[in-house]
Amino acid sequence: MEYPSKLVEKAVEEISKLPGIGKRTALRLTFHLLKEEKKSVQKLAQTLTDLREKTVYCQNCHSISDKEICNICSSAYRDEKLVCVVEDTKDILAIEGTSQYNGHYHVLGGIISPMDGIGPNQLTLQSLIDKVTKQQIKEVILALSPTMEGDTTAYYISKKLKDLDVKVSTIARGIPVGGELEYTDEVTLGRSIISRVAFES
Amino acid sequence: MEYPSKLVEKAVEEISKLPGIGKRTALRLTFHLLKEEKKSVQKLAQTLTDLREKTVYCQNCHSISDKEICNICSSAYRDEKLVCVVEDTKDILAIEGTSQYNGHYHVLGGIISPMDGIGPNQLTLQSLIDKVTKQQIKEVILALSPTMEGDTTAYYISKKLKDLDVKVSTIARGIPVGGELEYTDEVTLGRSIISRVAFES
Repeated sequence: MEYPSKLVEKAVEEISKLPGIGKRTALRLTFHLLKEEKKSVQKLAQTLTDLREKTVYCQNCHSISDKEICNICSSAYRDEKLVCVVEDTKDILAIEGTSQYNGHYHVLGGIISPMDGIGPNQLTLQSLIDKVTKQQIKEVILALSPTMEGDTTAYYISKKLKDLDVKVSTIARGIPVGGELEYTDEVTLGRSIISRVAFES
Repeated sequence: MEYPSKLVEKAVEEISKLPGIGKRTALRLTFHLLKEEKKSVQKLAQTLTDLREKTVYCQNCHSISDKEICNICSSAYRDEKLVCVVEDTKDILAIEGTSQYNGHYHVLGGIISPMDGIGPNQLTLQSLIDKVTKQQIKEVILALSPTMEGDTTAYYISKKLKDLDVKVSTIARGIPVGGELEYTDEVTLGRSIISRVAFES
């Protein structure tokens, strides 16, 4: 496509680098921004720069935070002996959304994925091991995605924690609530039969 | 939803002001930007600011341009006596994409819409009338969207040009190529029967 100006072309190019945004959507957004007030566009640009440059990570759990120690880690009402290991801050939001968990978190910052060049050393694993040792953590819950990489990472962590005095658990897998049995994939259904639990009425 | 930090909250707020982007997508984009290199985010922000602040409009056709006179207006291969009136630069891209038009354009910068507070004076109408008079334009093609506002604007322009020595036409309306007759709405189908043309084999 021929763009009306170099500035438009550059804007489309930059915006379409964002995930899930193609050239057409980028062009639509570009024209939208051209019609906006100068001040609003400046504010958007400044916000994005600030976001990337000023964001702080919690020194205890490595989650995105406003302070050196995040609200969850500094809360007196949460069980600090219980640590839920997640891939990134997004997963904390998801789990907090359930209101079913009252412990601390530990953000790995990724999962082991040789295809993407991410090995155990790029994750916050040593920090997790130190925390378990020094803070006498009682239980580590592995809440990783049920993918090949997630399973590999969970296995690696469980091996690392084996000799420490800590219980290691993983979130339950099975058929989703509200899901139809006949449409559930075979692996999930098979695992949900193997790991069946006592019926609670 | 509770955001992990004020910076994330602000970013989500700003990004979700863009059309077609909701809070969830904005959050996804925010997390994406946090993982990007500082340099890339800076580049994106700078590009957006430049786009809004440095964009130039062609003095002849009011289209977005790199120079004072855009490539189309300065081209020696285009018919300067033929002017196609469009709402904004996006429409020029669409018409250029057809490769069926070889005249000049005139960008109105909007359409008459009392609901949005846009009257004839906010558009580049006087500039169009001046152009028609001074440059001895032979034909003005109205290529506006077939909506209430588009029709109103077309009617207004045609009245303004009535006393000038210029032919005023409008792009054909009818059933879209490839469209199924039975699914075409009644108004379009009705108009396509009234404005039928001689069959060309």
